[in-house]
Amino acid sequence: MSRRRYKVGEKKAGSSPGSLIYVGKEIDYKTRVRRIEYNATDYAIDDIKRLSECRLPATPEPFVSWLDVDGVHEASVVERIGQQYQLHPLLLEDVMNTRQKPKLEQYDDVYLFATLKALSFNEATQELESEHLSFVLGKQYLISFQEERKGDIFQPVIDRIIASAGKTRRNGPDYLMYALMDVVIDNYFVTLDCIGDNLETLENRIIEQAANQETLTQLYALKRDLTLMRRLVWPVREMLNGLLLEESELVKPVTAPFLRDLYDHVLQVLDIIDSYREVAASLVDVYLSTLSNRMNSVMKTLTIFSAIFMPLTFIAGIYGMNFDNMPELHTRDGYFAVLGAMGVLSIGMILYFRRRGWM
Amino acid sequence: MSRRRYKVGEKKAGSSPGSLIYVGKEIDYKTRVRRIEYNATDYAIDDIKRLSECRLPATPEPFVSWLDVDGVHEASVVERIGQQYQLHPLLLEDVMNTRQKPKLEQYDDVYLFATLKALSFNEATQELESEHLSFVLGKQYLISFQEERKGDIFQPVIDRIIASAGKTRRNGPDYLMYALMDVVIDNYFVTLDCIGDNLETLENRIIEQAANQETLTQLYALKRDLTLMRRLVWPVREMLNGLLLEESELVKPVTAPFLRDLYDHVLQVLDIIDSYREVAASLVDVYLSTLSNRMNSVMKTLTIFSAIFMPLTFIAGIYGMNFDNMPELHTRDGYFAVLGAMGVLSIGMILYFRRRGWM
Amino acid sequence: MSRRRYKVGEKKAGSSPGSLIYVGKEIDYKTRVRRIEYNATDYAIDDIKRLSECRLPATPEPFVSWLDVDGVHEASVVERIGQQYQLHPLLLEDVMNTRQKPKLEQYDDVYLFATLKALSFNEATQELESEHLSFVLGKQYLISFQEERKGDIFQPVIDRIIASAGKTRRNGPDYLMYALMDVVIDNYFVTLDCIGDNLETLENRIIEQAANQETLTQLYALKRDLTLMRRLVWPVREMLNGLLLEESELVKPVTAPFLRDLYDHVLQVLDIIDSYREVAASLVDVYLSTLSNRMNSVMKTLTIFSAIFMPLTFIAGIYGMNFDNMPELHTRDGYFAVLGAMGVLSIGMILYFRRRGWM
Amino acid sequence: MSRRRYKVGEKKAGSSPGSLIYVGKEIDYKTRVRRIEYNATDYAIDDIKRLSECRLPATPEPFVSWLDVDGVHEASVVERIGQQYQLHPLLLEDVMNTRQKPKLEQYDDVYLFATLKALSFNEATQELESEHLSFVLGKQYLISFQEERKGDIFQPVIDRIIASAGKTRRNGPDYLMYALMDVVIDNYFVTLDCIGDNLETLENRIIEQAANQETLTQLYALKRDLTLMRRLVWPVREMLNGLLLEESELVKPVTAPFLRDLYDHVLQVLDIIDSYREVAASLVDVYLSTLSNRMNSVMKTLTIFSAIFMPLTFIAGIYGMNFDNMPELHTRDGYFAVLGAMGVLSIGMILYFRRRGWM
Amino acid sequence: MSRRRYKVGEKKAGSSPGSLIYVGKEIDYKTRVRRIEYNATDYAIDDIKRLSECRLPATPEPFVSWLDVDGVHEASVVERIGQQYQLHPLLLEDVMNTRQKPKLEQYDDVYLFATLKALSFNEATQELESEHLSFVLGKQYLISFQEERKGDIFQPVIDRIIASAGKTRRNGPDYLMYALMDVVIDNYFVTLDCIGDNLETLENRIIEQAANQETLTQLYALKRDLTLMRRLVWPVREMLNGLLLEESELVKPVTAPFLRDLYDHVLQVLDIIDSYREVAASLVDVYLSTLSNRMNSVMKTLTIFSAIFMPLTFIAGIYGMNFDNMPELHTRDGYFAVLGAMGVLSIGMILYFRRRGWM
Repeated sequence: MSRRRYKVGEKKAGSSPGSLIYVGKEIDYKTRVRRIEYNATDYAIDDIKRLSECRLPATPEPFVSWLDVDGVHEASVVERIGQQYQLHPLLLEDVMNTRQKPKLEQYDDVYLFATLKALSFNEATQELESEHLSFVLGKQYLISFQEERKGDIFQPVIDRIIASAGKTRRNGPDYLMYALMDVVIDNYFVTLDCIGDNLETLENRIIEQAANQETLTQLYALKRDLTLMRRLVWPVREMLNGLLLEESELVKPVTAPFLRDLYDHVLQVLDIIDSYREVAASLVDVYLSTLSNRMNSVMKTLTIFSAIFMPLTFIAGIYGMNFDNMPELHTRDGYFAVLGAMGVLSIGMILYFRRRGWM
Repeated sequence: MSRRRYKVGEKKAGSSPGSLIYVGKEIDYKTRVRRIEYNATDYAIDDIKRLSECRLPATPEPFVSWLDVDGVHEASVVERIGQQYQLHPLLLEDVMNTRQKPKLEQYDDVYLFATLKALSFNEATQELESEHLSFVLGKQYLISFQEERKGDIFQPVIDRIIASAGKTRRNGPDYLMYALMDVVIDNYFVTLDCIGDNLETLENRIIEQAANQETLTQLYALKRDLTLMRRLVWPVREMLNGLLLEESELVKPVTAPFLRDLYDHVLQVLDIIDSYREVAASLVDVYLSTLSNRMNSVMKTLTIFSAIFMPLTFIAGIYGMNFDNMPELHTRDGYFAVLGAMGVLSIGMILYFRRRGWM
Repeated sequence: MSRRRYKVGEKKAGSSPGSLIYVGKEIDYKTRVRRIEYNATDYAIDDIKRLSECRLPATPEPFVSWLDVDGVHEASVVERIGQQYQLHPLLLEDVMNTRQKPKLEQYDDVYLFATLKALSFNEATQELESEHLSFVLGKQYLISFQEERKGDIFQPVIDRIIASAGKTRRNGPDYLMYALMDVVIDNYFVTLDCIGDNLETLENRIIEQAANQETLTQLYALKRDLTLMRRLVWPVREMLNGLLLEESELVKPVTAPFLRDLYDHVLQVLDIIDSYREVAASLVDVYLSTLSNRMNSVMKTLTIFSAIFMPLTFIAGIYGMNFDNMPELHTRDGYFAVLGAMGVLSIGMILYFRRRGWM
Repeated sequence: MSRRRYKVGEKKAGSSPGSLIYVGKEIDYKTRVRRIEYNATDYAIDDIKRLSECRLPATPEPFVSWLDVDGVHEASVVERIGQQYQLHPLLLEDVMNTRQKPKLEQYDDVYLFATLKALSFNEATQELESEHLSFVLGKQYLISFQEERKGDIFQPVIDRIIASAGKTRRNGPDYLMYALMDVVIDNYFVTLDCIGDNLETLENRIIEQAANQETLTQLYALKRDLTLMRRLVWPVREMLNGLLLEESELVKPVTAPFLRDLYDHVLQVLDIIDSYREVAASLVDVYLSTLSNRMNSVMKTLTIFSAIFMPLTFIAGIYGMNFDNMPELHTRDGYFAVLGAMGVLSIGMILYFRRRGWM
Repeated sequence: MSRRRYKVGEKKAGSSPGSLIYVGKEIDYKTRVRRIEYNATDYAIDDIKRLSECRLPATPEPFVSWLDVDGVHEASVVERIGQQYQLHPLLLEDVMNTRQKPKLEQYDDVYLFATLKALSFNEATQELESEHLSFVLGKQYLISFQEERKGDIFQPVIDRIIASAGKTRRNGPDYLMYALMDVVIDNYFVTLDCIGDNLETLENRIIEQAANQETLTQLYALKRDLTLMRRLVWPVREMLNGLLLEESELVKPVTAPFLRDLYDHVLQVLDIIDSYREVAASLVDVYLSTLSNRMNSVMKTLTIFSAIFMPLTFIAGIYGMNFDNMPELHTRDGYFAVLGAMGVLSIGMILYFRRRGWM
């Protein structure tokens, strides 16, 4: 369990404000840039090798132009794209800062900037992993930035574009942005399913009283994942709300009901997170009360043993004394009488503890 | 106890947005569609076999037309009804998504869409069960969708329509929607009564100190049910408020006071839920303190036994030693003196513990 | 301790909306209706036997007409009064529903409807008891409904009307309603005094360490009473605020400062409730830590006994062994030497535990 | 520790609304009334013996007239002053009701009414003591009411008026009211210092593990004091805000920045209260975990003793048996061998517990 | 651990309002005043020896004039600067009051006043240390006040001004203020990193079960530091928001996006603080459950020892009795039979505890 995900590089503090510095996990592969252009009748997908090929599309363009950038760790690449598309430097800083929370910013009806996180649950480390995604929505184009390249989350949308001239192909870049966000948010449900499975495993272990200290540590890890997830999803709500309220020409009225639907899904995600958090909290309580119960049971066992054998041992001790004058010792059946008395005593004790419900 | 009620089918994630996919429990029977038409003087109830019979009623119709659909798991049925009544695809998605939270949506004064949950408490599994209900209110018609067919919750309203030309018969589809919602919300009270009975049983068990770990698990299950119920009822408040504030021609002024009354009932339901949650929380605390008390009592028993018998056994041990020169052993009454001393010692101990309030 | 105060009769669920059904405690006596008419110079009090005598007073009436109805369980009586005074059916439903929370409703400047609860603390059952009160304020009349007849809470006001031509006699029905509400809210302080006395008794018991499991149960009962009281008083605040903001001709400006004063009193009540709740919460904590402390003390006693007597008994056991060759046994002073060693050992142990602060 | 500070005299409930009844501690000395008149050049201080001497100053008066009333328990005195200055009866009720929370009320630009509490910490009883203060601010005069006479909190201001023709002397009654409130709020910091000292003492006791049940009780008493203080200071914020926003001629613009400064101080007081409350809460937690730790240590001691001596005593018991045929007993070195084995066993045990970190 | 950081000098209470009194740590070195003047082409840095050299720059000045004051404990210095720059006395009071919370105040478009705290984490005392910083922003000048001189936090900005004619040199005093605040807030991340490291150390100690009471005390100290930090950073959010909304000529539009960026950073800081607080809270819970688990394990050990050796010792006691007639004693193999029985009994016990999972 590591909190280091919030590690701030010390080189950042003290540097000139507005300078492009990547803040995030170390990544060693090169950035990949793809351009997907399509309209209702046609489409084309290119891998861009030279960034100078990217350009702001002319306004009365018959194509939707989607630039998909995989990797935000190379300042030179991000800066170059920013120049080609005339983007604000602080926007580029947010693209490269993977700690940036989801938000929406409008730049004078020329373009919109939106960020959110793709989430996945790493079963091995039991940790929530997040990928920083940014979108720049212009009149005729969409630029998407992905933090990491592995397991491209946008592939289903590309497949749909290739497969048929469906809704995505018939609509503008605002619908495309919606479609990409929809994939991301649908994945939140998958992530929650993973967390739910883990929670269920822990719950079973606790109810079958097979839990130990490690179970608790895992439970707290899950709780923390859920809190983190809540913190990363909550502002998405705001962001979508902003898109809906923003009276921008960039988001067409036909896309609005779809965004409202997305907003509803985010509310559902938050709702599930809250219910999981509550489940986790009550599991902790149940576990702690199990500990108390177990202690009670241990103590009862000890007390029963002591209460039975202490008096018996004492009686045996009595008749082990070496006084000259101990008349009982010299009777014929003294020994058996004492054994009998001991039997009666121990049976009495057992009955007593039975009645008190200790056995 | 299962959290799986929030299970999200993986087929959903990645699918094209707006596609009609049923999300909910598996259901194997066929959808039943009934049409009830009535006015102040007359009524008719038909089982609809062919969906083409359903049609948007002409506006100056002398009848209120109520289409009751039992079952939302068949995409083809829901889609067909949507076509006949010209409903928005996203609305149909909400009808089929049983995870959808209660909400209200207005479609340009042509129709209103409202969803809420019917709730019941399953005594066997101690779980809250919810049924997804949706209403589409038009000028002259009402469509109601029920998730499940068993135990029709709307039967009392149908009975009232059949029985007499009362308020329901004299009013429009908005009053009918109110009447159906009223039945649903009245059932919330019944559900709360069941939960209250269970809570009372647990409370008695805890106060009579007959509680065990399982009692606690049940208590947490009830608490979770209450939290879930709160989450499902809370947005109903919003929804009704929306109906009241919405300046729609679909809801006539004469229905408003009834909706306000319904709103009051929902507030009462939320109030009872909160008080039950508090009861449950304090029961958990009482139970845990009972555990501590019991432990205290066990420990006292152990300590009393040890404190009495350890010194006695020690004395017996002394006179069990085999030293040659132990003068006491050879006196005539040594044995009886020691027995007497032991008796005095143990009585002293008992008095001491009495005074400390341990016995 | 019973939660059944929220019991909802099952006959209610499923019945036609707006039908008059009494929801509350079972009551077996008949409703009493009194009419008190007064102005600055004169007054008259009548027991009304035939409800047809009740009538809406003509507007330019020189009298204030107060109809005091004791008992809301007879639907026929309430309905009849409703007819005579032309009251809305849903208002009557609220009068008969003793679960209704405090609220204010205005019916088009013709009359106002206000409900609140009279509260008292039952020392025997340690429960908060509430009585449902409703007021209908018209231009020239006031109707008050009381749930129960025993111990009439309004008697002081009647006495003041009889006693002298004071403020009540000189003002209209709005001032009368204020005066009645003032009595109710002054009684909240008396109720809080009772709860405070009980809290103090429990506090003393806990601080003197004489508390047991039952003390805790009582404490939780008081906490629950306070929570219930909070829930019943909180909306009174809203209700009074509504009366102040409502631009109604029914409430004259001269009454406004008095209502504002009442509002202040309600705030004080809520403030005291909150401080009592906090006291109760900290008493629970103190009690639980007392349990831990007591356990500590028990365990220390046990440990001291064991640590002293176990080694001694062991030494005695050594010299109780029957080996042929045990030289110490045959020395002259071996026995006394061992006794001395035992004494030294036990004194050493005692000193050790003293130093550790256990004795 | 007594909660009785909220005791409501029962004579109040049921009495006619608006009647002047003192609610507060019993006080036996007579009310003292002083009048301080001053302007930039001159001043005069009189003890008023006959209340008829008090009068509303004529408007174009060259003096600021301050009437300082010590004691609010004599209804006749308060009522007489009310008549002389033409004050509203409900205002006088608030002056005499020491339970009244801080608030501001404006009476049509003729005068302002403000109340707040002077606070002090009684070291002997560890309780927060409050004194009810009220101010009536007119165009040319200020009336201040103090609940108690002992230790006059306003003396520093009087001294400044006497000492020099400073800011107070050069400004109007609004600045005087500010100056008096400033003294009161500065005293809040002194009170917090006292509480802080007590908190520090308790903290040291807890960290040095010298805490006992009484420490906890004191801690809860301090926590309660802080909560009470918060409740009494919080509305002062509102009151000052009201003075700032109130567009009244009574508060001159020159005084506004000073009031804003006072407002800042109140925020600081609330901030310190919150941080103290948190300190108190975490001290409780630390204390409780100390209890658990101590218990652990006691139990370990017991277990170590038992685990060492039980096996040894058992071995001694074996060779104390009286069987005829026990070959070991008759060997020459059997006794010494057994003693040796016992030594090895106990050393082994000690090493084992060392390794588990119990010793 | 000391709460004395909130110590209020008693000399303050009772003193005339508005008088300049330093409230803060004792400081013994003299105040240093530096003036840095620069524009895009040139710059000059002077150590000011005589305060009369400071003067309000004439408006059409071609230089940005930055007065950096290190030390706010000398009332004479602060007062003199106030006179030279015509600053309000209450502003100067806030400069010298190191307890002042972050805030923004505008003085009629002539100058803005802003305060915030520089924070650092003292590893030695595990305490958060704060330095009070104030800014006065005029049309052509900026005055910065620092509480302490050691380790000048503003040095990087001075270095940048010296190094090159970059953004800072090309912009006005509002950008300079932004640049200084940016350094302060970047340092918050460094401070959080220190706290995060400590938290991680404690976490590892707790998970490896090497924690003790002191670990808990440290954890609470960190929690308190985080709460304090939250309280000191939260109003910075407000302050920046104020700068953004304030329609002042002092803050130029070109600086606005940078301030918005700073605002985002403050949100991130608050976000990290919240997540750390949660980590700390769950670590406390894990630690406390570790205590319970350890106690359980100790008790099991004790119970196992007792349950095995008590019966064995009892049996040995039986055959140590001195009855004349004990037939078993005289059989040839009685001794060995008893030893065997004891062996069987203890193995049985061990198996029993194995099966219950205690060993």
